Amino acid sequence: MKVSIVGVTGYSGLELLRYLRQHPFVEIVSIHSHSMNKKSLEVINPHLKQLISLPLEVIDPKKIMQKSELVLLATPSGVAKELALPFIEADFPVIDLSGDFRLKNPGSYEKWYGSTAPPMESVKKFDYGLAEYRENPKSKWIANPGCYATAAELSLAPLLKDGKIELDSIIIDAKSGISGAGKSLSQTTHFSEAHDNMTLYKMNSHQHIPEIMEQLNKWQPNLSAIQFSTSLIPVTRGIFLTAYAKSTEPISDEKLVQLYQNHFEKNSFIRIQEAGHYPALKQVIGSNYCDMGLAYNPKTNCITIVCVIDNLGKGAAGQAVQNLNIFAGYDERCGLDQIPIYP
Amino acid sequence: MKVSIVGVTGYSGLELLRYLRQHPFVEIVSIHSHSMNKKSLEVINPHLKQLISLPLEVIDPKKIMQKSELVLLATPSGVAKELALPFIEADFPVIDLSGDFRLKNPGSYEKWYGSTAPPMESVKKFDYGLAEYRENPKSKWIANPGCYATAAELSLAPLLKDGKIELDSIIIDAKSGISGAGKSLSQTTHFSEAHDNMTLYKMNSHQHIPEIMEQLNKWQPNLSAIQFSTSLIPVTRGIFLTAYAKSTEPISDEKLVQLYQNHFEKNSFIRIQEAGHYPALKQVIGSNYCDMGLAYNPKTNCITIVCVIDNLGKGAAGQAVQNLNIFAGYDERCGLDQIPIYP
Amino acid sequence: MKVSIVGVTGYSGLELLRYLRQHPFVEIVSIHSHSMNKKSLEVINPHLKQLISLPLEVIDPKKIMQKSELVLLATPSGVAKELALPFIEADFPVIDLSGDFRLKNPGSYEKWYGSTAPPMESVKKFDYGLAEYRENPKSKWIANPGCYATAAELSLAPLLKDGKIELDSIIIDAKSGISGAGKSLSQTTHFSEAHDNMTLYKMNSHQHIPEIMEQLNKWQPNLSAIQFSTSLIPVTRGIFLTAYAKSTEPISDEKLVQLYQNHFEKNSFIRIQEAGHYPALKQVIGSNYCDMGLAYNPKTNCITIVCVIDNLGKGAAGQAVQNLNIFAGYDERCGLDQIPIYP
Amino acid sequence: MKVSIVGVTGYSGLELLRYLRQHPFVEIVSIHSHSMNKKSLEVINPHLKQLISLPLEVIDPKKIMQKSELVLLATPSGVAKELALPFIEADFPVIDLSGDFRLKNPGSYEKWYGSTAPPMESVKKFDYGLAEYRENPKSKWIANPGCYATAAELSLAPLLKDGKIELDSIIIDAKSGISGAGKSLSQTTHFSEAHDNMTLYKMNSHQHIPEIMEQLNKWQPNLSAIQFSTSLIPVTRGIFLTAYAKSTEPISDEKLVQLYQNHFEKNSFIRIQEAGHYPALKQVIGSNYCDMGLAYNPKTNCITIVCVIDNLGKGAAGQAVQNLNIFAGYDERCGLDQIPIYP
Repeated sequence: MKVSIVGVTGYSGLELLRYLRQHPFVEIVSIHSHSMNKKSLEVINPHLKQLISLPLEVIDPKKIMQKSELVLLATPSGVAKELALPFIEADFPVIDLSGDFRLKNPGSYEKWYGSTAPPMESVKKFDYGLAEYRENPKSKWIANPGCYATAAELSLAPLLKDGKIELDSIIIDAKSGISGAGKSLSQTTHFSEAHDNMTLYKMNSHQHIPEIMEQLNKWQPNLSAIQFSTSLIPVTRGIFLTAYAKSTEPISDEKLVQLYQNHFEKNSFIRIQEAGHYPALKQVIGSNYCDMGLAYNPKTNCITIVCVIDNLGKGAAGQAVQNLNIFAGYDERCGLDQIPIYP
Repeated sequence: MKVSIVGVTGYSGLELLRYLRQHPFVEIVSIHSHSMNKKSLEVINPHLKQLISLPLEVIDPKKIMQKSELVLLATPSGVAKELALPFIEADFPVIDLSGDFRLKNPGSYEKWYGSTAPPMESVKKFDYGLAEYRENPKSKWIANPGCYATAAELSLAPLLKDGKIELDSIIIDAKSGISGAGKSLSQTTHFSEAHDNMTLYKMNSHQHIPEIMEQLNKWQPNLSAIQFSTSLIPVTRGIFLTAYAKSTEPISDEKLVQLYQNHFEKNSFIRIQEAGHYPALKQVIGSNYCDMGLAYNPKTNCITIVCVIDNLGKGAAGQAVQNLNIFAGYDERCGLDQIPIYP
Repeated sequence: MKVSIVGVTGYSGLELLRYLRQHPFVEIVSIHSHSMNKKSLEVINPHLKQLISLPLEVIDPKKIMQKSELVLLATPSGVAKELALPFIEADFPVIDLSGDFRLKNPGSYEKWYGSTAPPMESVKKFDYGLAEYRENPKSKWIANPGCYATAAELSLAPLLKDGKIELDSIIIDAKSGISGAGKSLSQTTHFSEAHDNMTLYKMNSHQHIPEIMEQLNKWQPNLSAIQFSTSLIPVTRGIFLTAYAKSTEPISDEKLVQLYQNHFEKNSFIRIQEAGHYPALKQVIGSNYCDMGLAYNPKTNCITIVCVIDNLGKGAAGQAVQNLNIFAGYDERCGLDQIPIYP
Repeated sequence: MKVSIVGVTGYSGLELLRYLRQHPFVEIVSIHSHSMNKKSLEVINPHLKQLISLPLEVIDPKKIMQKSELVLLATPSGVAKELALPFIEADFPVIDLSGDFRLKNPGSYEKWYGSTAPPMESVKKFDYGLAEYRENPKSKWIANPGCYATAAELSLAPLLKDGKIELDSIIIDAKSGISGAGKSLSQTTHFSEAHDNMTLYKMNSHQHIPEIMEQLNKWQPNLSAIQFSTSLIPVTRGIFLTAYAKSTEPISDEKLVQLYQNHFEKNSFIRIQEAGHYPALKQVIGSNYCDMGLAYNPKTNCITIVCVIDNLGKGAAGQAVQNLNIFAGYDERCGLDQIPIYP
């Protein structure tokens, strides 16, 4: 399959390059950048020297559709909502890594993203791309999930689907590496401010909240709200998410682990730790894995789920490649079957 | 006041030196180490070169009591429970920074620390040293609180004392810098493992849980359990604690801030952020400050408290100096009145 | 002495606040910012909450001179060259932390800073503020040295003054923490780029080269050039400088150490390590110390000097306070006599 | 080709797994550990969960030689010198990643490693495995070079071979990430000591000095010594090496770049930056690349070479795989052809 990548100089775009270059059935035929198209990719990103010989091109949908069979949009939220339209009109496959086509509830995009939503008829065409729970796996249009959303949804899926937790008790304390904020410069991501630091941001207002709610409501329509916090930790990559919920009945660590292992047994990229073991952030970096550990506290009747992903892997480019594989009918591990980088 | 420091080469011991050397009314007359007493302090810790001229001495309680008026024990848990006894017998003031004299409930020490408790008659003599809530400020024997415990207790004090939260809903997600694990070498604190990493440890079993429960029960005897998680983040210093609890009634961010500001208005080291602002870890490093931010989420009825301290400051040596000041009748800011180090 | 600080929200300005607030003989009477003057200092820098009650003011030289007895300019290079002029004209004391008044050779500023030099009659009035080697200690106008320059000059002073090294053999490999690049945002100082990274920048073109040369030439007029490299390491604070030079004759480590100890024996802030010991960067952080270690290699006839400073301490604000003390006739340690923060 | 890995739980051993698992022509048939053989690899290293199904076995040369066609020894220096002997006696291929078989000069091993050397007849059988300069590419026994040595030798090869530099002027200032010190615990590699720090260690006494000298002398027998410093920077992976030497005649940056590009034009893993550009450490992490930048300073007549490698990649496991490819007659890029992980 011939593919084009738009927004290739951003962190998710670079990670798409890294995964797709070693994909056995995919050929990258063109790469595009909004802002950098006159520069040499090797000069902007010397780690690619001698590895990518394609030139950086301007974004011309017609040309892309002539050369290519699918386009991956790794542009920031707010860009794809216009960029994707000519492709959709031409019935051309799109995987969008931004938040622009994820929210199906009318008014939700405007409220949480603070700008005009894309046309609802386009939004409806997109299948939400949580790879383990795709509704329409053959959809030509895939809205790749957010990084926090991926970790939150996978953490809660087995418990919510099986009705194991009190619906008003869910608390998610999520921590992200700084690359989640992208390449744009800001005070928050300035080294001297972010290093040796930790901050909570977007208190009760992160745009992944409605995304998570839409997905969780598919599994539990009665769920009305989640408490969801996002903070930054001084690592480049990774999401470390801790979720808490009251159990509907006493349960053991072993049974929880069993529940999750059963639930995900056909999913190559979900690895459930044995009872008493909890994943470290670093064990998934550079990969598409999502590792989880589970505990039940009989004193508080509380279940704790610890979930780690690479925000640029399972949280962005890795899952996009997984979704591409599902769409194309390849084994979902194609291009993604490497050992995480450790230490 | 003449003081001696035992365990001076550990991280809390070094921090006691840093604060007490600039204390206007305290003179350090001797320093002692369990393991290092034949070495030169300057060679072990070259940052002290030309600043501390005292020799490292063995621990001889008699000699200490001859020279000194108070002893600070900065030894690991399990050491002070024997070391403190001759001082107590001689009616000599002790501030212990370890966990050995904090737990008053019989059986609790054995259960959570996994070794024999110190004699209960000695334990009872110690006043729990949460400086803002001392029960017996003139006590000669002070059990300085744990780092996590300090942050957890200060975060919940106003809400619990005023009966503002559902007692079965408290969830504390605490993150600590690696210096909290001390100077002892371990796989977990090996740079290549800890750097770029985050891990949850001692799931539902951290020894600060009973300590926090004892203190919270003073304020709310009906509280029966808290959900309390501890994790390591890749910074040297600092605790970043996020606490969640269901509100008994709707409240605004502003009223929450007001409640905390009123509650702590006489406490120099507690700084409450304005509504909509949350503290960054780094803003308290190198100091005895405890900074907090507050939010109420009407959708989940959940209150979030963000609390940051320096684990070696307010979480250990800083609070020990504050307790010394309270004991001696000095202004509680003596020796502690510096600007945190930033950036 | 009443002082004003201009550029107080930059990293050097904040560090001036930290040192001067605890200076026994200095009162900060006003603080000023180029860009932030309408904001609250506490909101921009919450670590200062309840510690600094002064408002941020615009820069009005007349008002400053009415209230104050000395002004510290902690503005970026290129700003002070105009800002300082009214103070100089009014015969009012200025300590400038930027590079604007350091270079005395005509044409040098234009060449290395790439903009118009300040008037040479003003430049000449400034004494170069390397505190251990002040030419005119009573000067009202002090050009505080650059961070790299401070470390480089102190490293080579004893050898050059005593004629111990081959003049064409000096190589300086200097590494700096990221705060040296200040608060301005850039790709280089973006966390995801700077973390886990190291880069060499301004190859053979750093603006501290002419500054170092001017100072070294005072001690050795025949010296014609130095090889000087600057690189960034992923720490917030600190300069780690390694200097190499061929010895004019064989020497031992012990004699080198003795030479340096003798040379600096009256300088409180220079600490020479014993033979066989070399300073770690961290042992000076948060302080005005400059620590050095020395070695001679008989196989290469090469002397190695390892020198560490805090770029915001001895490399900026600390040395500025030291120079203020020299100017005012105070003990040079006033306000600077704390233990470095470790770990 | 069927291979076995001994010392698989060390950092180089893990990296061998990562590269070889995706090698098109290599099958890992057994993995072995000195100390961990009764444990599960997945429990010790959860990043490998579901990726490596082989059990950890004790080291039994006979069994290894039955199953396998080549053994990789990723054990610490001092272990391989005995472990390798039965394989050598049986004429079985060995790639040793330690320092045990690198030094050919009699007495050198004892002097620099401080223990008994392996038998010289065994040492002589080993070809020094600097992949770009192999003397005996078909040798069954390969002594894979040290990480510092690899970077130092590649940096100087073109200049030394072409006689472009003064032989008594070479100074190498090398910085390494902490994983270079391996998994063994030490004060130096304790997070709270290593983080935010930089230290110079083994001043003029690093065991890679004789290794580098032996290799450089092959190219320039008259070279008698190099000045070589090693320091630790707070990153997990990577070597950043800056080498300096006096040029025999004036040269331009462009000509230097041309010289290196010509010299390495057939070497896939050496990437020479354009004139005026210098590599950042991060651009080679996770890969076998060695990137270099060059500059000439007419004022000092000094050439500067900046060289970056991943110490676990080109500095250890990557180069071992490259050497395996050379031995087996595969394309040298097999198993190594991935994009470095960035950011």
